[in-house]
Amino acid sequence: MSPTPQVPSTDPRIIAVDTYDIRFPTSRELDGSDAMNPDPDYSAAYVVLRTDAHDGLEGHGFTFTIGRGNEIQVAALEALRPHLLGRSVEELCADPGSVSRDLVGDSQLRWLGPEKGVMHMAIGAVVNAAWDLAAKRAEKPLWQFLSDAEPEWLVGQIDFRYIADVLNPDQALGHLRRGREGAAQRTDALRERGYPAYTTSPGWLGYSDEKLILLAKEAVADGFRQVKLKVGADLEDDIRRMRVAREAVGPDIRIAIDANQRWSVPEAVEWTRALAEFDPYWIEEPTSPDDILGHAEIRKAVAPVRVATGEHVQNRIIFKQLLQMSAVDVLQLDAARVGGVNENLAILLLAAQYAVPVCPHAGGVGLCELVQHLAMFDFVALSGTTENRVIEYVDHLHQHFEEPVRMVAGHYAAPRAPGFSAMMRPESIERYRYPDGTFWLADEAAKEFKV
Amino acid sequence: MSPTPQVPSTDPRIIAVDTYDIRFPTSRELDGSDAMNPDPDYSAAYVVLRTDAHDGLEGHGFTFTIGRGNEIQVAALEALRPHLLGRSVEELCADPGSVSRDLVGDSQLRWLGPEKGVMHMAIGAVVNAAWDLAAKRAEKPLWQFLSDAEPEWLVGQIDFRYIADVLNPDQALGHLRRGREGAAQRTDALRERGYPAYTTSPGWLGYSDEKLILLAKEAVADGFRQVKLKVGADLEDDIRRMRVAREAVGPDIRIAIDANQRWSVPEAVEWTRALAEFDPYWIEEPTSPDDILGHAEIRKAVAPVRVATGEHVQNRIIFKQLLQMSAVDVLQLDAARVGGVNENLAILLLAAQYAVPVCPHAGGVGLCELVQHLAMFDFVALSGTTENRVIEYVDHLHQHFEEPVRMVAGHYAAPRAPGFSAMMRPESIERYRYPDGTFWLADEAAKEFKV
Repeated sequence: MSPTPQVPSTDPRIIAVDTYDIRFPTSRELDGSDAMNPDPDYSAAYVVLRTDAHDGLEGHGFTFTIGRGNEIQVAALEALRPHLLGRSVEELCADPGSVSRDLVGDSQLRWLGPEKGVMHMAIGAVVNAAWDLAAKRAEKPLWQFLSDAEPEWLVGQIDFRYIADVLNPDQALGHLRRGREGAAQRTDALRERGYPAYTTSPGWLGYSDEKLILLAKEAVADGFRQVKLKVGADLEDDIRRMRVAREAVGPDIRIAIDANQRWSVPEAVEWTRALAEFDPYWIEEPTSPDDILGHAEIRKAVAPVRVATGEHVQNRIIFKQLLQMSAVDVLQLDAARVGGVNENLAILLLAAQYAVPVCPHAGGVGLCELVQHLAMFDFVALSGTTENRVIEYVDHLHQHFEEPVRMVAGHYAAPRAPGFSAMMRPESIERYRYPDGTFWLADEAAKEFKV
Repeated sequence: MSPTPQVPSTDPRIIAVDTYDIRFPTSRELDGSDAMNPDPDYSAAYVVLRTDAHDGLEGHGFTFTIGRGNEIQVAALEALRPHLLGRSVEELCADPGSVSRDLVGDSQLRWLGPEKGVMHMAIGAVVNAAWDLAAKRAEKPLWQFLSDAEPEWLVGQIDFRYIADVLNPDQALGHLRRGREGAAQRTDALRERGYPAYTTSPGWLGYSDEKLILLAKEAVADGFRQVKLKVGADLEDDIRRMRVAREAVGPDIRIAIDANQRWSVPEAVEWTRALAEFDPYWIEEPTSPDDILGHAEIRKAVAPVRVATGEHVQNRIIFKQLLQMSAVDVLQLDAARVGGVNENLAILLLAAQYAVPVCPHAGGVGLCELVQHLAMFDFVALSGTTENRVIEYVDHLHQHFEEPVRMVAGHYAAPRAPGFSAMMRPESIERYRYPDGTFWLADEAAKEFKV
């Protein structure tokens, strides 16, 4: 209908919501193997918001999955397209919360959750893409965009439904206003030193003891003060691996252990106690992420070992209860599991309300790239500290991103490029698009040749 | 490869997993409207397991949705196909639990939940289809197939992971053995009188007061002793509707109210108290189904009004905690939200363990047809009682099923046909398949004509 399509629009709109099924064949190296996930193919259901602003800016977001079912996530992204197409870019960037509320509030799609699983993760991907676009248009990395935002505006971004009984807008505003004090100095400190990280790369369950020792020593040499081991498949093995890991890193490096939900409550207690002599710093995902009371019971029984969970916690409502029940020592938010930045703001504020440290989950595909922004915002403009706070780091698949994380002496360097660091390289998309990317086509051809 | 495809196989296999996206245009009549779902198009992601047994038997199952997103459920069903194809029908019917465990345990698909939302509902549909086939091959309606089964075998069908801390296999066996005492007499009673029901048909939020009064009086005349009203959109309206409903049915008929998760905890308490003078029997879904502690708090604050929830409760782990926290007076299991019959057996046993009555959620598309079997099994061979127990009944869309529920004097008559009553009529599938069924094609053509 427009007679002048080449002229930049003065009121640009979202004109396309492109989706991609991207899969990396990580299972072939046992990277990412743990007690529940023996052979993950790290994948992303990837979404790009395109506009007619002719400024070259797009919004990028994704859901991380581990292979099969990534196409279901893509189908969920596509179901959200009608909510995005035609939206004013100015309005979307001025109020990403309105997108978030519309998506969560679609009554028919809500039935598929509510606010959990496939549908909620797809909403998270789209909401994150909106924030990516908003930060790019503001020409700031997301952590800075959030840190510079007015507390009142940030509070307006949050859906307080179902959490208002423990955190109301006034309380949230109080946290954010206090968080602003000293933000300029902390921004400088962040730019100088980065944000502390720990690494999971040595501890995958499929690795040999030799590889574990080598990588653990390397991690310490690289400046990490914490490593993590996957546990939960076999107790004898875990005792041996924990012993060699402790010997490799010495007594001063923290070793976290991670059971990836393998246990029921009694097993979790027994197993963790059996590893306690090696001084594990936390036990992560000891049981189902849905079991709030179970985590509370485990925490009482395994102290002083800390209890951590969050990467599979479906939304702010479960986090609220984990905090209400004093069920966790460490809250591990994930950038792509819940409903995007807006819900993660709520979760960061809940953690602040209960003074529980946030140590984000990362790894996967692009989760490090995303979540660093949330932790850095928390440091600069909310909790104001990195004490007992570390972001997980895993050293694979970063090469597929345009703005990969940069690690310096065991710290995440503060991103400088505008946006949410979510953009995948076009060559990587071309190669690993499933099933028709060049890698997968060649793989299929090779299989046929073998037969 | 088989040289004699026409001869019945002696070791029949699953040879096809057919899926259908079925949608009914219910939003046009405001049937099913409530405070969170103003315009549902009741839908089913439908699955048929076909075999090469040449006995004419198929396994039927489905997920209920309310319209948009039904295609995502279908995509999830399709992701499960490789787990089913080629399976031995004998083995599947002798141990549907093995299917359930395999589907829930697919480590890559598990990432999409775990055990919640789109992926878990799809698993429920497939698992229910397996049970449908098993009961048909045994030539029994499912309620009877379950009631006749050995307690040891039933216990073997249950996944105790994450619930073993409150219910272990020995305790489950105890409940089932006690439940068997007197089962023959209860089977006779069930066949004679059926299972008590309540009806939600009068109380949809979109109905006028006149329609509400008319339908409520009709319900009482039809023999129902309980009706239900949707509430939560506007308090003034709710007070007026509750008053006219109470006047219409008199003091002896129970009126349940249902907020469909509309409220945060403080609102739920306030609103329920404001309606207490009309003696509501229970408040259903006062807040998020994820908020276990919230339900516990609401229950304390609104007694003697009972608290009920369950239709959106994602799995046995959340039910476990609702029971642990004494957060509900009434547990409303749903036949198609969780991981199928196996997980519902666990939930019925948890309810028995805590002596909480189960009043199943129904309505939707085919949920009445399915869930009656679970309640009847519970009466005959587990709890042994229908005291304070009623199955929800909604009077639409039954005509699309081959074996629709039969209501007699406010009771569900015990199904006599073998299976799980899940089979939709082929004409209905042909007409309401989306988007290419005859109804939807005509609808699309009519729209174009109007433009």
